[in-house]
Amino acid sequence: MKAEIVGIGDELLYGFTTNTNAARIAEMLLNIGIEPRYMTTVGDNERDMMDALIRARMRSDIVITTGGLGPTPDDITQKVVAKLFGLEIQFYEGMMKDVEEKYARLNRPVPEFARNQAEFPVGATPIYNPIGTASGIEIVRENKYFYSLPGVPSEAMIMMEQYVIPKLESIPKREYVAVKLIRTASWGETQIQTALGKEGLKQIKEAGCSLAFLPKHGLVDLRLTAKAKSLQKANEMIEKALPLVLQATSSIRYHIGNESLIEVILNELTQMKKTVAFAESCTGGALSSMFTEVPGISRVFKGAVIAYHNAAKKTLLGVPAKTIDRDGAVSKSVVRAMASGAIKQFDADFAIAITGISGPSGATPTKPVGTVWIAIAKKYKGIDKPSIRAEHFVFPGPRLVHRLRTIHTALWMLWQEMKT
Amino acid sequence: MKAEIVGIGDELLYGFTTNTNAARIAEMLLNIGIEPRYMTTVGDNERDMMDALIRARMRSDIVITTGGLGPTPDDITQKVVAKLFGLEIQFYEGMMKDVEEKYARLNRPVPEFARNQAEFPVGATPIYNPIGTASGIEIVRENKYFYSLPGVPSEAMIMMEQYVIPKLESIPKREYVAVKLIRTASWGETQIQTALGKEGLKQIKEAGCSLAFLPKHGLVDLRLTAKAKSLQKANEMIEKALPLVLQATSSIRYHIGNESLIEVILNELTQMKKTVAFAESCTGGALSSMFTEVPGISRVFKGAVIAYHNAAKKTLLGVPAKTIDRDGAVSKSVVRAMASGAIKQFDADFAIAITGISGPSGATPTKPVGTVWIAIAKKYKGIDKPSIRAEHFVFPGPRLVHRLRTIHTALWMLWQEMKT
Repeated sequence: MKAEIVGIGDELLYGFTTNTNAARIAEMLLNIGIEPRYMTTVGDNERDMMDALIRARMRSDIVITTGGLGPTPDDITQKVVAKLFGLEIQFYEGMMKDVEEKYARLNRPVPEFARNQAEFPVGATPIYNPIGTASGIEIVRENKYFYSLPGVPSEAMIMMEQYVIPKLESIPKREYVAVKLIRTASWGETQIQTALGKEGLKQIKEAGCSLAFLPKHGLVDLRLTAKAKSLQKANEMIEKALPLVLQATSSIRYHIGNESLIEVILNELTQMKKTVAFAESCTGGALSSMFTEVPGISRVFKGAVIAYHNAAKKTLLGVPAKTIDRDGAVSKSVVRAMASGAIKQFDADFAIAITGISGPSGATPTKPVGTVWIAIAKKYKGIDKPSIRAEHFVFPGPRLVHRLRTIHTALWMLWQEMKT
Repeated sequence: MKAEIVGIGDELLYGFTTNTNAARIAEMLLNIGIEPRYMTTVGDNERDMMDALIRARMRSDIVITTGGLGPTPDDITQKVVAKLFGLEIQFYEGMMKDVEEKYARLNRPVPEFARNQAEFPVGATPIYNPIGTASGIEIVRENKYFYSLPGVPSEAMIMMEQYVIPKLESIPKREYVAVKLIRTASWGETQIQTALGKEGLKQIKEAGCSLAFLPKHGLVDLRLTAKAKSLQKANEMIEKALPLVLQATSSIRYHIGNESLIEVILNELTQMKKTVAFAESCTGGALSSMFTEVPGISRVFKGAVIAYHNAAKKTLLGVPAKTIDRDGAVSKSVVRAMASGAIKQFDADFAIAITGISGPSGATPTKPVGTVWIAIAKKYKGIDKPSIRAEHFVFPGPRLVHRLRTIHTALWMLWQEMKT
């Protein structure tokens, strides 16, 4: 079944908001064997929306829209969807009561146009919204499935999880897609291709699978895809090709599946009952921030010092002033001292320390923009001084690219130290 | 002129990558009076891509595609675009030399399929890529403008800036769009509407403008839009409606224009020659990370302590153990001690301290998930103790929503302290 995701809202079209819903809905659909084929974004105007929805209905078996279900006059999704299916709009007293109760619970006044949220296409099924005030819409016609969800990501996601995905999972399909992610770090695309060899790539094709390379700033995901008449058959095709990929990536692989490098590290640290702390300079807290986005991380994460200025490296991490004066803040000796300072200050088992020049300014003749030192410190029971491994890199690219590349490399180095 | 942005790539469609290019290109177009009307995403397969591009060419005056220009066999944008316009593909010796030189400069081996990147549609104009190896494509036919750019965001963005935007700016257009952002914090949508009043909203309409509300987790952007035959006329319409919006938002506005709250704070601190430091607990480094994404921030940002565990609050921020024992880690006394500790440890002029329960676990009977204390400390010259303002909130919503709401609120509180 072909699925299409339609984002609705001027704020998406005008670039003020990035459409993260589309990516997350796509991932959820793929997990149950449904292939997302199109993503479309239109503004809050009836003609464009109708045009996009008519086309989506024609070419796709499943259409999921997000946005335009709110209470303001801009929000016209309900009206357009009703027109699309030739349904009347009716005001429902019961829905209005629900809406009012929800505003009360959220401690917000009922807005002028709240009444709009109790107007609903007759013959459509309302989808319960456990967070916000806007109900979703389900319309099933001739084996085609149409859903409208609110644009607020947390609301759209929970309604996908609780209603749309279970429903779509239960319907029979003509074709299933199976996908397996193999997640690696350190090598580039070309190196991995060489490791697979022409023969390996040929055998993957013969198993009926396609293999895609998805590089992400120091990490490369390999994606095996197979399509078949049943989800079981598609999975069997994947199982046939998988060993070839696993063999070629044994030294650079951290996971098979959807878990991120951070989630893999979290699970392993939890099992080991070990903790970690960070000392960040040029990454400015981004490593800590990414790390703490994952629920449950407080079991293993002690904290971090963001030593953006040199003074903080001295006072908070105990880096000797003379080391900074002698070797500069971006140096092997300083990154080692930062890592050992973090272990000590936070009483952690592992520490990552990062110091570098992410640009655009800050370069010196011997240290170009992109220079970075990363150290991993590891504490052994009963031994006073941690063991420390430090490495030096020059990552090209603009500030945020450099930052991501640095963080991914540091996490990969930590993962390696954890496994040895 | 109607513009359409087409994202190409299975990784976008399958949700492994979020399409940030589309939002940034849209914003750039809008800045020169061109309205983005559609965004589309298709996978790396010829039929879907052709279908999307034919439609885009029909309905839009400007089409910009990103992705599919790389060296691997998946990358078929060149081929499909050539077919779309009925152009031959030819191998160019000179382009091949450029590609080889670029790989050499990036210290990367020339991949097997690099030759693809020197094949180019005859009659199209190549767009120089100052970062990567893939050239862009420009095709102009009958007052319609077609561009293909690489999918790597840094490459697509620089090619937009250096080539596409100056080109599109120079062509005469039938209609121009002017947009003005008015950025506010603290109030919700409904409160702002009440402040504007029915009369205000009516006058904005009479000036020929539309007003949209874009709430973002504690911040609300107001967007005035006007369309006219010249950019000057559209701007005049905006100028007529603007005072009404400014009057209603005087106590909650931090900026008129595209600058973010962090950029506004950075500029003001730079002018004041003052510095800031953070003590973060539940936000886990996300405040520091967002802050340091902005280039130039090292002028004003001293650093941060991410005190995820209580031990770090004591050792690194000097919060008395008995205060934590008596009031708990999420309390007024602890957040005040954290803020004053940050001022002292980093020798900063301002500090933000945050402690809270972002969930899903960690709640107590008196402190529900979502509880957060935020403090702003401000140092006065010659006075030993900083002045501290602390406030208490309960922000509903999942972990990352709570995090954003907390950060926005903390930055708004800092901004207020800076201005008084």
